[in-house]
Amino acid sequence: MKWSKSFIQTFREDPADAESISHKLMVRAGLVRQLQAGVYTFLPLGSRALQKIANVVRAEMNAAGAIELLMPVMHPAELWQETGRFDGYGDAMCKFKDRKGHVNVLGPTHEEVVTDIVRNANLSYRNLPVNLYQIQVKFRDEARPRFGVVRTREFIMKDAYSFDTDFDGLNKSYQLMYDAYLRIFTRCGLKARPVEADTGLIGGDVSHEFMVLVPAGEDRVLTCTKCAYAANIEKAEVKSSGGLPADRDTTELRVREKKETPGKRTVEEVAQFLGVSPRDIVKTLIYKTDKGPLAVLVRGDHEVNEPKLARFAKAAKLEMASPEYIQEVTGGPIGFSGPIGLRARVLADHGVAPLLNFVVGANVRDLHWVNVNLNRDFKPEAFADLRLAVEGDPCPRCGGPIQFSIGVEVGHVFKLGTKYSEKMHCEYLDPEQKRKPMIMGCYGIGVTRIMATAIESHFDKDGIIWPKEIAPFQVELVTLVGKETKVAEIGEQVYAELTKAGLEVLWDDRDQAPGVKFKDADLLGLPIRVTIGKRSIEAGTADVRRRNNAEQTSVPIGDVVKAVQEQWNAYVV
Amino acid sequence: MKWSKSFIQTFREDPADAESISHKLMVRAGLVRQLQAGVYTFLPLGSRALQKIANVVRAEMNAAGAIELLMPVMHPAELWQETGRFDGYGDAMCKFKDRKGHVNVLGPTHEEVVTDIVRNANLSYRNLPVNLYQIQVKFRDEARPRFGVVRTREFIMKDAYSFDTDFDGLNKSYQLMYDAYLRIFTRCGLKARPVEADTGLIGGDVSHEFMVLVPAGEDRVLTCTKCAYAANIEKAEVKSSGGLPADRDTTELRVREKKETPGKRTVEEVAQFLGVSPRDIVKTLIYKTDKGPLAVLVRGDHEVNEPKLARFAKAAKLEMASPEYIQEVTGGPIGFSGPIGLRARVLADHGVAPLLNFVVGANVRDLHWVNVNLNRDFKPEAFADLRLAVEGDPCPRCGGPIQFSIGVEVGHVFKLGTKYSEKMHCEYLDPEQKRKPMIMGCYGIGVTRIMATAIESHFDKDGIIWPKEIAPFQVELVTLVGKETKVAEIGEQVYAELTKAGLEVLWDDRDQAPGVKFKDADLLGLPIRVTIGKRSIEAGTADVRRRNNAEQTSVPIGDVVKAVQEQWNAYVV
Repeated sequence: MKWSKSFIQTFREDPADAESISHKLMVRAGLVRQLQAGVYTFLPLGSRALQKIANVVRAEMNAAGAIELLMPVMHPAELWQETGRFDGYGDAMCKFKDRKGHVNVLGPTHEEVVTDIVRNANLSYRNLPVNLYQIQVKFRDEARPRFGVVRTREFIMKDAYSFDTDFDGLNKSYQLMYDAYLRIFTRCGLKARPVEADTGLIGGDVSHEFMVLVPAGEDRVLTCTKCAYAANIEKAEVKSSGGLPADRDTTELRVREKKETPGKRTVEEVAQFLGVSPRDIVKTLIYKTDKGPLAVLVRGDHEVNEPKLARFAKAAKLEMASPEYIQEVTGGPIGFSGPIGLRARVLADHGVAPLLNFVVGANVRDLHWVNVNLNRDFKPEAFADLRLAVEGDPCPRCGGPIQFSIGVEVGHVFKLGTKYSEKMHCEYLDPEQKRKPMIMGCYGIGVTRIMATAIESHFDKDGIIWPKEIAPFQVELVTLVGKETKVAEIGEQVYAELTKAGLEVLWDDRDQAPGVKFKDADLLGLPIRVTIGKRSIEAGTADVRRRNNAEQTSVPIGDVVKAVQEQWNAYVV
Repeated sequence: MKWSKSFIQTFREDPADAESISHKLMVRAGLVRQLQAGVYTFLPLGSRALQKIANVVRAEMNAAGAIELLMPVMHPAELWQETGRFDGYGDAMCKFKDRKGHVNVLGPTHEEVVTDIVRNANLSYRNLPVNLYQIQVKFRDEARPRFGVVRTREFIMKDAYSFDTDFDGLNKSYQLMYDAYLRIFTRCGLKARPVEADTGLIGGDVSHEFMVLVPAGEDRVLTCTKCAYAANIEKAEVKSSGGLPADRDTTELRVREKKETPGKRTVEEVAQFLGVSPRDIVKTLIYKTDKGPLAVLVRGDHEVNEPKLARFAKAAKLEMASPEYIQEVTGGPIGFSGPIGLRARVLADHGVAPLLNFVVGANVRDLHWVNVNLNRDFKPEAFADLRLAVEGDPCPRCGGPIQFSIGVEVGHVFKLGTKYSEKMHCEYLDPEQKRKPMIMGCYGIGVTRIMATAIESHFDKDGIIWPKEIAPFQVELVTLVGKETKVAEIGEQVYAELTKAGLEVLWDDRDQAPGVKFKDADLLGLPIRVTIGKRSIEAGTADVRRRNNAEQTSVPIGDVVKAVQEQWNAYVV
């Protein structure tokens, strides 16, 4: 394609709102353009890269035996009500009323629709397993779209759904996808690390996220430096001795007393005021759940892990209480909650169990209890692993040291089990002609997100360095024209030869200074660059180089195709 | 692909709600499944055909120099307010409020978005022309979805938008698309006839629809049997001498009088009651427009053409008046409106001009005027071509006989001119550095609709006969297994050889009776069928045939690939 006809625009300046490298480079290189918050157009170069990524995904999904279909964007609300997720999704779900007054959901994911299709297919055990996938636009009304196309409100996802007769089958289907995902990410230039993950709104028992450890992420990932353990912080277990230590020295227990703590609400303020360490304070957090109020105790220097808490408390809905609700439950204002005399269910994190003579709120404004002790002063319903892991925690598997990183989730696989098939009666006939619920898995890849993450993983100060399989073009041909029309002629000839050889070429045929063209070529970051100028054609040569190797080779004009093919074979990104 | 792993289901019975052949066959052959009214899943076979169609469209668009991008589904309402189309689209537009309260439109078409992208690209005359296209899902909340995937609420469209510096350029861009469209439809097995069309909500001066003349259509198309004239009935001109005939014999005018017509509202009722022909009655239709009430007179046996009327009256909005509004405007009830003494703008169709002593409503319940005459009793503001063409009308170009047909619109091209570029300030810099509005065209193809129309064009009593380029698979391999495991072995071998030769094969490997398999093969309608059974392998042969030719050829097993390739080359649909 000729640049002059290509509708490619590049920019020298970073966009004002861009926080991440990929966002900056994608806008500057003319891959995407924002239409509104979290909604992007994929411009010609971006659209080409997107199709390359989709082709990689499709090839590996087909190779793994999955079958492609295309499900609609518009779902009747009734389907989502069947599984109870119509309410569960909350504000992140985009909905509209059609002209007949029916509520439609813009699919944020397709478990309901695919389960509806499969339950109507009257399958028997002979037809299973089956794994159905699509590449389709999805909608999630994110509260805070970020990092360009990393977190958007409209995005393209590959989603697959497997249906098996039993859990052994599910395990096989899951492993097939797990392996296919690793191949897909490798082919797209990503080092994706599978980590244990929380199953969230999708549900099921087991899930893995595929994380690319780049700064443009919002996920915190823990990896053990000794063993293979890796987990999203939402899922990461914290190793604990469990419960009240049997060898607690009760002779140490001091007399509990009330202390004025005027205006001191935060752990830091209270610790400083009372002259204790945050580790000696126990925070009491009040949650509103579908099962009533819930108080959670964690050490002052720890944070509650809400997914863990929701799982342990078996709460379908769980949210931080408002100041009003706290007042209603504890009788006191926010910042002074405590477990003593509290009329609510109280759970405590394991980290609280070994503490002696600690501080808690007194459920009265400006008052805290000091020298509080477990069992003597109050007794939680249970101790459990309810907190986020912190730096210094040992690996829950091997006890080794844990590393914290920031990552972008590019894929997520789930063992759903019968969560959807039971609620929606998605059944198969077994050999005895009995109806049984299918055992499901689901598997998602963020197709648009792969592009951002690939760029986040491969760039230098001058621009993008495209992974080989997903580059929008393989070759950029740069002609330095000036007043020399001969250069354009030879350029035309080389362009035709490269194209004839099956190479995808972007020809920068613009009337621009060499500096501008080279800067743009670096910014666009296509794998191979061929340069033809006045000097080179006088010598009868063209210059060929790879984007990630400054070394330039002069080759006779007649050998350009061969040289490009060699450089292409040598290009490893 | 093996049928047993393919998630293909076929049905013997037509779906209850299906009115059209393509709808019946697409459901029965397992191409699509309805999720809700006007919203379909493309099942594995349908999804494959869809991709084939998209590939044809993409190839021809690229060959015509158009550049692919991908625009979002979610548009901010503000963009649509800029062009005034936010209200214009009415109930057919799907909209939703996001979590921040902003109204979003689900793109029914993308003129606003593409114009926004191009105006922000700072183009000069050197960068033009440019033609941008996408293949993207679209949403139109049709009041009456019909004919399977012919008229749906969610569908896939290829839409392209050209930007030129002048009208000569637009004419060239338009012709490029017009020619590309003819190639696309031919490759997809469609006989698409370009017809002059109304520009409707898209706007502009000139447009052509590409019509496939099959029964599953809602468009009425006129074609001249003598010259090249062809038009959608909405656009079709009616030839007319124009205005009041100069040679009117005014000695014939009879005395006007009121006649009681109790309960007679329709033309037929009044004509029968008064003993006149419907041609002697002039209907007075009341419209509500953005410029106030409008009365239109047409002969009793004619119908108003509303697009023509809106254009002539320069009305941005025009709708049939409600009974209440008619009462308000005429003073009388619906069914008795007439032009005499009417306080509204009155336009008359040319067909009214030659009439003498005709009948009109008296704007009073149960009363009509008879022996009414133009000029003497009332005078319309203007005569114009305001009616639908009818059988028997001569061709407006050559006067030859006109044929009426039913068609499905598979494509539509528009010369938009500056309708969007002026409102949205989409400008380019001319050689004198002056800013000028771009001259636009837009070009749409219904990708999902092509599939239905292709089937509507190619089928027999047993099922689909796929056009060559868009068939989901090229070959169906049928093995008749029974107790003979040797057949399965040879099947496996032939399947591998065909696949290795680059052919796309669906292997019906199911444990089903031959009759079932043959019926399904006919229903699916893949171009080439290879049959291997006990008898044939005893003879060391397989049977090869084309879907549209019952003649079967027995070939040695070793020659199957060659025979299939020959049959494929001979397959012309």
